[in-house]
Amino acid sequence: MSHWPDTRLADRLGIVHPILLAPMAGAAGPELAIAVARAGGLGALPCAMLDADTIRRQVAAYRAAVNAPLNLNFFCHAPPLPDAVREAQWRERLAPYYAELALEPDATSPVPQRTPFDAALCALVESLRPEVVSFHFGLPAADLLNRVKASGAFVIASATTVAEAVWLAARGCDAIIAQGAEAGGHRGMFLTDEAGTQVGLFSLLPQVADAVSVPVIAAGGIADARGIVASIALGAAAVQIGTAYLLSDEARISPAHRAALHSPHAAETALTNVFTGRPARSIVNRLMRELGPLSDAAPAFPTASNALAPLRARASALGSDDFIALWAGQSALLARALPAEALTRQLAAQALGRLQA
Amino acid sequence: MSHWPDTRLADRLGIVHPILLAPMAGAAGPELAIAVARAGGLGALPCAMLDADTIRRQVAAYRAAVNAPLNLNFFCHAPPLPDAVREAQWRERLAPYYAELALEPDATSPVPQRTPFDAALCALVESLRPEVVSFHFGLPAADLLNRVKASGAFVIASATTVAEAVWLAARGCDAIIAQGAEAGGHRGMFLTDEAGTQVGLFSLLPQVADAVSVPVIAAGGIADARGIVASIALGAAAVQIGTAYLLSDEARISPAHRAALHSPHAAETALTNVFTGRPARSIVNRLMRELGPLSDAAPAFPTASNALAPLRARASALGSDDFIALWAGQSALLARALPAEALTRQLAAQALGRLQA
Repeated sequence: MSHWPDTRLADRLGIVHPILLAPMAGAAGPELAIAVARAGGLGALPCAMLDADTIRRQVAAYRAAVNAPLNLNFFCHAPPLPDAVREAQWRERLAPYYAELALEPDATSPVPQRTPFDAALCALVESLRPEVVSFHFGLPAADLLNRVKASGAFVIASATTVAEAVWLAARGCDAIIAQGAEAGGHRGMFLTDEAGTQVGLFSLLPQVADAVSVPVIAAGGIADARGIVASIALGAAAVQIGTAYLLSDEARISPAHRAALHSPHAAETALTNVFTGRPARSIVNRLMRELGPLSDAAPAFPTASNALAPLRARASALGSDDFIALWAGQSALLARALPAEALTRQLAAQALGRLQA
Repeated sequence: MSHWPDTRLADRLGIVHPILLAPMAGAAGPELAIAVARAGGLGALPCAMLDADTIRRQVAAYRAAVNAPLNLNFFCHAPPLPDAVREAQWRERLAPYYAELALEPDATSPVPQRTPFDAALCALVESLRPEVVSFHFGLPAADLLNRVKASGAFVIASATTVAEAVWLAARGCDAIIAQGAEAGGHRGMFLTDEAGTQVGLFSLLPQVADAVSVPVIAAGGIADARGIVASIALGAAAVQIGTAYLLSDEARISPAHRAALHSPHAAETALTNVFTGRPARSIVNRLMRELGPLSDAAPAFPTASNALAPLRARASALGSDDFIALWAGQSALLARALPAEALTRQLAAQALGRLQA
């Protein structure tokens, strides 16, 4: 029995609590989505780094475990043209680290794919029929978007500015995520590439809520019940939470990443492009300090990660977090490490308690 | 008759509403402070750019107009040692603009003083007996701080990180401003000089509220009643509002600054050090775009403003905002242009209405 003030999303999607698991590519699989869904939130599967078979398998695992709606999340970046010069310059910039870790200058390592939403993934959506499809870095081309909507999916996308929110609403998004600058991981920005003008949730959320008529989902820096209540006060119909769930056992992150999230260093995060080529919030580590946090030398998303892969693999094996992305929002130290189902229930109960006080 | 949930500041200071006028040096005099006080908020006089006689005169004007507590605000920066090399390099960087505006390369213009709190200002405080003294950029030396406290003043200072809040509380601050990254004007930062790791209010406020036992005042991006209610949800005892008051008739800002605050450009602000040498949030203009927003070349605060002064004067006379600081928080476009007394009454009434709904 829910007493949330805005039940538009709950009614439309069939969730109990207006709490969305942030899809965190590379950090979460079906375990986390299932746990959040079991507690009445909206489970999400980040698909941007998965092949079609893995997506199918993860969706099947989710469907087998819970009778609840599912959010499949995709990236919508334009893959960059190959740029050998830039790539070579980036390798040169990283050369001292290769030498330090005794890597051959031309070493390579497997790099996870980051595939933008395309016709093949669209066909997969049409076959899997997720209740919700969400996009990061804008939207797919109109014909693909129309097919997604025709499949019956509720479409969500991220805005980092009021202009982006208006753009998304005009193209038919059913709800819009206002991604405050506090958020961990990649900025969803797509009408600007200026990291320095990104907007805090306190300013972004009410302005987006005023600018669009669809429900607005608050994201960035929300890690406890106070954040949920404050989001509602600022005009949100729901919240999307990421970093707090990274602390749960269900998250698939490296021991180094987990340790960083619990350390005092988690108080210092910055927007950096050195890991992938796009601005994303990470706990400050050596690579960010020495080459960034924002570097003109980083090749376009996602190719900056290619030359980093051997460093990441070698350093990780040594237990170092010098070269791995330590994605985190600015409220990591506010979050409690709990199993994801318990965390979701606690967040909902405490927020409802405060709303009814 | 107030129904605010936390009345600690109201009870201690004798204000009706937990709404503090942000002291905005160079942008506000007694008119604005008086208007806010008349509505039951806390009036403030920014003293950092004023001489002692002017401070005395402004305090007298305030006392004559209202029977209400007063906040005198001071800076606590360490004045930099003269650095002729850096200053010359900065002039060289600005030389093309001098040429463009037909200024002699060695032109100078009067530069407003930015004096840190010292023994003379402390004696002035002891004589004027403001009910509240607030500090930006840390705190004065212990002997001066002790004298301020012995005068009976309630002492407030700004924190931009949890570490700064803990530091301020340990030194006896009676309340702490959590200055979210959304805030306009100068960051109060004093234990870090890293603008890139500054924290949004959504993350900063609850973490500061957890870390200190004194009342916390939320600042940054609060421009309407929703922001007040959200601040209280995140743990604030009160709010401090700046940019929204800049829009009022009582603010002393240039026509170019006022026009920028109302223009769509106000959606794009960034932290910049090109105007004064310290990171501060301004609407993005030509100087920020071309030299910044953050420049290694800018001399230490406040001396970066010296070489800019002739450009500022000449361009302003031409009606251009290319070289003036357009201080603004990230919620400028959320604010309503009202007389400051009416704005304060409206903010309080609407917030109370929402809190009691």
